Amino acid sequence: MYDILKGLRVIEGSSFVASPVCGQHLLGLGAEVIRFDNIGGGLDASRWPIDGAGRSLFWEGLNKGKKSIAIDLNSPAGRELATQIITAPGEDAGLFVTNFPAAGFLSHERLAAHRPDLITARVMGWASGRNAVDYTMNAITGLPLITGPEDLPPDVPVNHVLPAWDLITGAYAAFTLMAAERNRRRTGKGGEIRIPLVDIAATTLGHLGQIAEVTADGPPRIRSGNDLFGAFGCDFFTADGKRLILVGITARQWKGVIETFGIGAEVAALEDRLGVSFDQEGPRFLHRKPLFDMVQKVIGAMSYAEAAALLNEKGICWETYRSLQESMAEEPGFISGNPVFNQQTHPSGHSYPTGGAPATFPALPRHPAPRAPRLGEHTEEILAELLDLPAHEIARLHDQRIVAGPES
Amino acid sequence: MYDILKGLRVIEGSSFVASPVCGQHLLGLGAEVIRFDNIGGGLDASRWPIDGAGRSLFWEGLNKGKKSIAIDLNSPAGRELATQIITAPGEDAGLFVTNFPAAGFLSHERLAAHRPDLITARVMGWASGRNAVDYTMNAITGLPLITGPEDLPPDVPVNHVLPAWDLITGAYAAFTLMAAERNRRRTGKGGEIRIPLVDIAATTLGHLGQIAEVTADGPPRIRSGNDLFGAFGCDFFTADGKRLILVGITARQWKGVIETFGIGAEVAALEDRLGVSFDQEGPRFLHRKPLFDMVQKVIGAMSYAEAAALLNEKGICWETYRSLQESMAEEPGFISGNPVFNQQTHPSGHSYPTGGAPATFPALPRHPAPRAPRLGEHTEEILAELLDLPAHEIARLHDQRIVAGPES
Repeated sequence: MYDILKGLRVIEGSSFVASPVCGQHLLGLGAEVIRFDNIGGGLDASRWPIDGAGRSLFWEGLNKGKKSIAIDLNSPAGRELATQIITAPGEDAGLFVTNFPAAGFLSHERLAAHRPDLITARVMGWASGRNAVDYTMNAITGLPLITGPEDLPPDVPVNHVLPAWDLITGAYAAFTLMAAERNRRRTGKGGEIRIPLVDIAATTLGHLGQIAEVTADGPPRIRSGNDLFGAFGCDFFTADGKRLILVGITARQWKGVIETFGIGAEVAALEDRLGVSFDQEGPRFLHRKPLFDMVQKVIGAMSYAEAAALLNEKGICWETYRSLQESMAEEPGFISGNPVFNQQTHPSGHSYPTGGAPATFPALPRHPAPRAPRLGEHTEEILAELLDLPAHEIARLHDQRIVAGPES
Repeated sequence: MYDILKGLRVIEGSSFVASPVCGQHLLGLGAEVIRFDNIGGGLDASRWPIDGAGRSLFWEGLNKGKKSIAIDLNSPAGRELATQIITAPGEDAGLFVTNFPAAGFLSHERLAAHRPDLITARVMGWASGRNAVDYTMNAITGLPLITGPEDLPPDVPVNHVLPAWDLITGAYAAFTLMAAERNRRRTGKGGEIRIPLVDIAATTLGHLGQIAEVTADGPPRIRSGNDLFGAFGCDFFTADGKRLILVGITARQWKGVIETFGIGAEVAALEDRLGVSFDQEGPRFLHRKPLFDMVQKVIGAMSYAEAAALLNEKGICWETYRSLQESMAEEPGFISGNPVFNQQTHPSGHSYPTGGAPATFPALPRHPAPRAPRLGEHTEEILAELLDLPAHEIARLHDQRIVAGPES
């Protein structure tokens, strides 16, 4: 947690991954992030993973450090309150992150009537407004058909488990919000930014050359299991059965592989036989199986401890497959021993390593990552301080169940 | 392509995905991005996918719209030139995006000696400087052990194909650069921002509740194939053998599933028998198999055309698995028909749909996405205009092979 965005106030009307992660990034660099939710919780209030009592560890993770206000968003008075919070004055305010529908009561046009320089970053499924989530729209990227074991039938899709599109979208949304805020500072103008998951995915495939690949005349993309596409890399096994991944993408990495495993003569013989040069990464992929065999023969004769020592000594780019639990226990600097993390007790009652900003500013002090709020924990504070409502008015909103404080 | 960052100049000393994608995001909103590479190309100059002539479609995709200068980065004079370019004066300049090593000739300290308010966003593997790429470090997240078909042995990892960590890191780096630029505008101070892939991954697992999940007492994470974790969602097949994914995460989505497939009575009977309520998303996951069977029975009796019409009419959140080629041909608004894309001819000679910024600013004009540069295409221009070098000096740099123009 850093202070460089201190003073900036962002309002979040959010659920699931992309939009809350955007708020989390802003918060990590010092912005104040106020998240409003329906009384009792929004769409993601119970999202898994959960603890033994059914409390959402997902919600806790995505909302740590945010201020929480609970509002009846189905009532006109509640919607009016949300509008006031979003459009509250201040040079460093008027920033709204949301995945609410573009055409609903939180449409940019309606909000901007109250604050013309409002900036809205809106995460969507399709630009058209059509419904899509990470798990569905990934199906049209073609990626599930090239993910997974090589021997799967070509029409069997394997989905990724990480909501990658959501996560890219959330980080990108934070970027666009900062860009728009810079522009507002120069021109006085706000505006809406729409960020459809589908457009994030489509442009990403373009960035990676995969759209060109479909239309150009190169080697077709195939399902290659854990073999790294277009260069040298795959899974290897030690004599004691540990599995690791090892890559040779750059010329230096490949040279390191040859030297470390003493396979120079074998590689040269194969080059002669095939009439190719493995100095180029493409042939390393096309003829990967015999190259993998050469390396496996050496690694397979070593214990894991021997292999690890050798690979680290030689500066090889490699890693061991582990469960998250194993990595947390065994890999110093990943979570335990990583200054990005601190132990923190959350409203669920659980205490666990909690991460702040993944960026490190070597010249600035890092503050500990905060705990998650209870839902509605800051209702009172926000109404009093941000909207300047008197105590009797706040009491009335509670009595009429237009707002709620934290559940006991 | 938008203009809101027009006037901002970013220098990129980059390779592979994260750092070039950061530049691509900045460029998409209007920044000028100058990428320097070694003469003949950097580490990623030949990265796959490639076309039939071996030209990298990957490089082309990640560097479109950037200005390219080719410099001998192994020579002291070339390093001095790169330093001058990075630290060139200007209020809207002094922004550097890189994945060069933190301790090398492009260390922030060395560069900042020439321009104290320089901002460096540096993508790394591990914070310690230890080597890691997306494909290796993913192994310690635990994700490969919960990705892929349910019936795989638990110790068999399945890697994602998308370099998700790189892509998140690239978008996040663009965000941090804008945040740091805002801070510089207020305080006059620049600084280095280090963004290790490993810290992006570790904090992301925390955001998603997966670190808490390991330490808390909830249901353990299992490999569940394409079944959506923690809610209702999986693959279904139509009578004519098309495969689709369909989810019911929110209460409204689940209600839509029940109504669309007319399974209300069957679901209620199962609830009675099990003593659970499927109004909650968790039980839908825990008892997913009989629920899947109910839906499959209905979908399996329909042709794809019938199913698609029904699902769209009912507003169900679903998608069809397709190859990228099929999606490009069949899915209007994804790539063809999507205003984010325009046809563009690139230096490879291939013409293909090229994407600009994935964000849409409804109130602002969008400019077409540009072509990629040839390597060294802007060498002359940058030396003359940015560094203000006289023609004879530029000629000397060419003659001494410290710089190079585009290859013919």
